[in-house]
Amino acid sequence: MQNFDYQTPTRLVFGKGVIEKLPEVMAQFGKRILLTYGGGSIKKIGLYQKVLELLKGYEIVELSGIQPNPKYDPSVLDGVRLCKEHNIDVILAVGGGSVLDCSKAIAAGAKYDGDPWDLISYKVKAQAALPIVDIITLAATGSEYDTYGVISRTETNDKIGYGDPLLYPHTSFLDPVFTFSVSRKQTAAGIADAMNHTMEQYFTADTTLLNDGFCESMLRSLMVNGRKCLENPEEYTARAEMMLACTYGCNGILSLGNSPSGWPCHGIEHALSAYYDITHGEGLAIITPRWMRHILSERTLPRFVKYGINVFGIDPALPEREIAEKAIEETYRFFESIGIPMHLREMGIDSSRLDEMAHHIAVNEGLENAYVPLSEQDIKEILTESL
Amino acid sequence: MQNFDYQTPTRLVFGKGVIEKLPEVMAQFGKRILLTYGGGSIKKIGLYQKVLELLKGYEIVELSGIQPNPKYDPSVLDGVRLCKEHNIDVILAVGGGSVLDCSKAIAAGAKYDGDPWDLISYKVKAQAALPIVDIITLAATGSEYDTYGVISRTETNDKIGYGDPLLYPHTSFLDPVFTFSVSRKQTAAGIADAMNHTMEQYFTADTTLLNDGFCESMLRSLMVNGRKCLENPEEYTARAEMMLACTYGCNGILSLGNSPSGWPCHGIEHALSAYYDITHGEGLAIITPRWMRHILSERTLPRFVKYGINVFGIDPALPEREIAEKAIEETYRFFESIGIPMHLREMGIDSSRLDEMAHHIAVNEGLENAYVPLSEQDIKEILTESL
Repeated sequence: MQNFDYQTPTRLVFGKGVIEKLPEVMAQFGKRILLTYGGGSIKKIGLYQKVLELLKGYEIVELSGIQPNPKYDPSVLDGVRLCKEHNIDVILAVGGGSVLDCSKAIAAGAKYDGDPWDLISYKVKAQAALPIVDIITLAATGSEYDTYGVISRTETNDKIGYGDPLLYPHTSFLDPVFTFSVSRKQTAAGIADAMNHTMEQYFTADTTLLNDGFCESMLRSLMVNGRKCLENPEEYTARAEMMLACTYGCNGILSLGNSPSGWPCHGIEHALSAYYDITHGEGLAIITPRWMRHILSERTLPRFVKYGINVFGIDPALPEREIAEKAIEETYRFFESIGIPMHLREMGIDSSRLDEMAHHIAVNEGLENAYVPLSEQDIKEILTESL
Repeated sequence: MQNFDYQTPTRLVFGKGVIEKLPEVMAQFGKRILLTYGGGSIKKIGLYQKVLELLKGYEIVELSGIQPNPKYDPSVLDGVRLCKEHNIDVILAVGGGSVLDCSKAIAAGAKYDGDPWDLISYKVKAQAALPIVDIITLAATGSEYDTYGVISRTETNDKIGYGDPLLYPHTSFLDPVFTFSVSRKQTAAGIADAMNHTMEQYFTADTTLLNDGFCESMLRSLMVNGRKCLENPEEYTARAEMMLACTYGCNGILSLGNSPSGWPCHGIEHALSAYYDITHGEGLAIITPRWMRHILSERTLPRFVKYGINVFGIDPALPEREIAEKAIEETYRFFESIGIPMHLREMGIDSSRLDEMAHHIAVNEGLENAYVPLSEQDIKEILTESL
């Protein structure tokens, strides 16, 4: 078991109607709010109007149009400029992980005099950040309970995950009702995203019975409740359990004391999203079973056997190799069954830039230090299998 | 699924040698420290000396002799007095849950002008508290990662659990090596304590697949690693995993969104400890299987069936009632197998005060609102079965 130093100070306010507590939470900060959101779905579900009503008396500056795979230019740069111009006291992010990730970059950038990319690229350590409150409308990334954000820079094909303890949201509001209207496509991508977050921590060299159990519970819960959300998008308990499970995905609670895994599927998927702007959770679902097949070996066999038995209920009496292969097949079939297109070509990605992407990943993602180290050739093979 | 409002801001610094970070953490507060500890085991393992060496230059006031089931008088009252006399900036609690629980009461009392019992008995809400840092030497209560403390008042046979968000430890140091010398008796009591914390959250009306999985993982991990700790007290990975599991016991992370259970075994055990000053974990181990047998019914059967299959691996093909009864029997046998005396009479408790205790519990512990409501008669029957 490895040493660790862990803290997640974010307050989670969870459940039906909890948004009524927003004024009480916002009263802890000043009067000037940057309200960040995406393409307008929060207006369709009435949340935008509700927020404005609850925050009468505040000076609210808006940054809208934040895209999936949020962009450094214009979103982060615009947000930082608005914060400085309006002397913003607190950011209120309303939306999914992309809005919140973008808001984290803005929060740090607003308190920094130079180019915010210095912070995102870890050239400079942030010294301060604006506080962030969020209202989550999509169960997926876990950004509401972690310190990370992922920002894309189109001109360089960079998609960078950065984090700083300053960037934990102060308070996250999670009302499952706000996720009732999430589309089938985005619901499925959210399931795959949170499942992969869990797998990235589960597949590593040094784990504990406790963490393995937590991860296996996450995966079983996400599969069962994810399916229910797809079958009946307004089933409160299923949406609620999926929402809670997603919050645990990235703040480390599932793997305290585990050895680092390198998050290899994320390393590969970040390039896919950066080059082709695909949906992150879908990219992960495509990569995951190919990566699994690629790393299955005598050394990794026991992990896959445990995974197969405890997550998919595969008969432990079968030969180990068979259990492992079945487990990988089940992983693929599950993602397929929830409607995720399981080939990159279905997203308009062909082989033309695979070499370039494999090289970019090999140079930038540090996957030579992953649970099973991946060379540029390995990455290329995984991408090719995923086509 | 129930609404919840959740936050655990404590920083966990975990692993071999992490105590070296103590000066860096303590530097965030002022120079005057109240060092609290128990009967001197921290001197035997060299931790006391190490702490003093690391904190050269600080003004350190000591409160020692804090007992198991920590006492309001003298420990809490002495601690509060010392804090006020010496204008203490921060409390450093070194020991197990009792030392930390006592320190939480002191932290609140030091910032209150009246009788600290006003706070503990919830007559007055604490408005401020001294910060607390702790170094844990016993894996059991989870006090290092929660906001609760339990304080006993001998003259009234009160043993009260109180909590306030102000009382989360600022930082908890957890080095499993410090638990190597914990006795067989205390190791077993710690296993039982953390297992019961988990069961108190698991046995309730409204749960989730996710929380059930977390709880079942806790129980399996505590049984496997607990046994290893007893067989080989210096096996680092077993001590470490047990230590981590114990931290999750009481801060709610295992049951977010579950319906309240009323923690009935704790309600009953608190009276046993208050009247007879027995070891809390042992009392819980004795009460738990008797309470289980008492509440087994058609209504609770599915919970016990799930528990039996997922925690003890009982054959799901058996009749449900048989699975449930086997599960309760296995619970009893496990506690017995780790050396816990499984009858109250082995602790010198006879029937002479059962009526009085049952009445005290019925009046003070609110068990009419438990998962399965318990009347004074129910409590008396459970105590009688436990003799």
